Amino acid sequence: MDTRGAETTRRTLLETAAQLFDQHGYAGTSISDISTASGRTSGAIYFHFASKENLALAVLQEHFATWPELVERYRASGRPALEQLVALSFSVARAFRDDIVVRAGARLWMERKAINAPLPAPFVGWIDVVSALLTEARKEGTLAPGIVPCTAAHGVVCAFFGLHTVSDALGSREQIEDELHNLWLLLLAALQAQPDPPALLAHVIGHPHIPAAATGEAPARPSQAPA
Amino acid sequence: MDTRGAETTRRTLLETAAQLFDQHGYAGTSISDISTASGRTSGAIYFHFASKENLALAVLQEHFATWPELVERYRASGRPALEQLVALSFSVARAFRDDIVVRAGARLWMERKAINAPLPAPFVGWIDVVSALLTEARKEGTLAPGIVPCTAAHGVVCAFFGLHTVSDALGSREQIEDELHNLWLLLLAALQAQPDPPALLAHVIGHPHIPAAATGEAPARPSQAPA
Repeated sequence: MDTRGAETTRRTLLETAAQLFDQHGYAGTSISDISTASGRTSGAIYFHFASKENLALAVLQEHFATWPELVERYRASGRPALEQLVALSFSVARAFRDDIVVRAGARLWMERKAINAPLPAPFVGWIDVVSALLTEARKEGTLAPGIVPCTAAHGVVCAFFGLHTVSDALGSREQIEDELHNLWLLLLAALQAQPDPPALLAHVIGHPHIPAAATGEAPARPSQAPA
Repeated sequence: MDTRGAETTRRTLLETAAQLFDQHGYAGTSISDISTASGRTSGAIYFHFASKENLALAVLQEHFATWPELVERYRASGRPALEQLVALSFSVARAFRDDIVVRAGARLWMERKAINAPLPAPFVGWIDVVSALLTEARKEGTLAPGIVPCTAAHGVVCAFFGLHTVSDALGSREQIEDELHNLWLLLLAALQAQPDPPALLAHVIGHPHIPAAATGEAPARPSQAPA
């Protein structure tokens, strides 16, 4: 098997495993299931990942590796900080809705107690990113005077991830962009120095993301097939 | 076994199971574990609950049954609506921290895909309660003009439950009251017609809950032993 072929096989296995982990969870997915769904042998899976646990870890690592690059793109855009924050949140919400590796990573992380391996600490990185953006908004004069960036960042991150939990529980994941829009109506009313959440949201939605042609916004990974 | 004895046994089994479910999850807890930890026979467990699944359902039902009574007590207090909302949230946060049946129910609910039984829909009841309180605040003139009660209620519930997810993940559950205080500094800045979150919080913390003597605020159930 040449290197390109090995990479393709590894990729196929990772994405097939992600689909099954997303649908059936860690305990509900076996190496044999992944073999059947991918059309590769169990031997190939063990060759590439050594164990189901390592395969789950690879999905989780790729989930967590998604964010720094995405954040960097928004940070480099030169847009006002609160706009960066809101636009970034919509990108992340779309990834949670559409990107199979992100979705599988989220489910595996919820089931982390069943996976007997050390995992990256979640949330901390997001709180730091949001805190930096709020600090920048303060410098720009767009942050409300009573808001303390690091404590407000913690609240924003809780609200954002809580939205996903509630949305998943109520089966409304397809409406996540509308729900996120409503959440920002609330949060921006607290964050903005001169509150006008609808105007900022309209502006961001008019420029919903860094143009795909310039930066490759569209996720390279396939979304889950419709259930 | 007389009725009182049967009730005591049922209660002991439920609370022992809750402790084990909270610590080890649904899949990680067996009838045999519950028998050993409770000092009762497996036969007694099957007599009272018929199956592990039913026992988990009983814990979940008691988790969900905790809230209507708690809400009713706050609703009957006659305090301003936003104060009721904030005070209620601290009571719920304390229950998630200290009450073993509430904690076990929360974990079982997270693992609901592994429990093969219909479960109550969560969050919907909370969104309704918060929406009603925000509508009352509007009538009182204390809600900011731009806030729509039902959409803001959704955001408040997401933020509150997201706080628990993040707090659990980062191992900061013991600081949940401080974190909730900070979250309200953010949310009240959006919700209040005349924003002064520190003043409202100071007022609520000065009267943190309906007095125990009058209403039995303290949970009747034991907390988990320190880990």
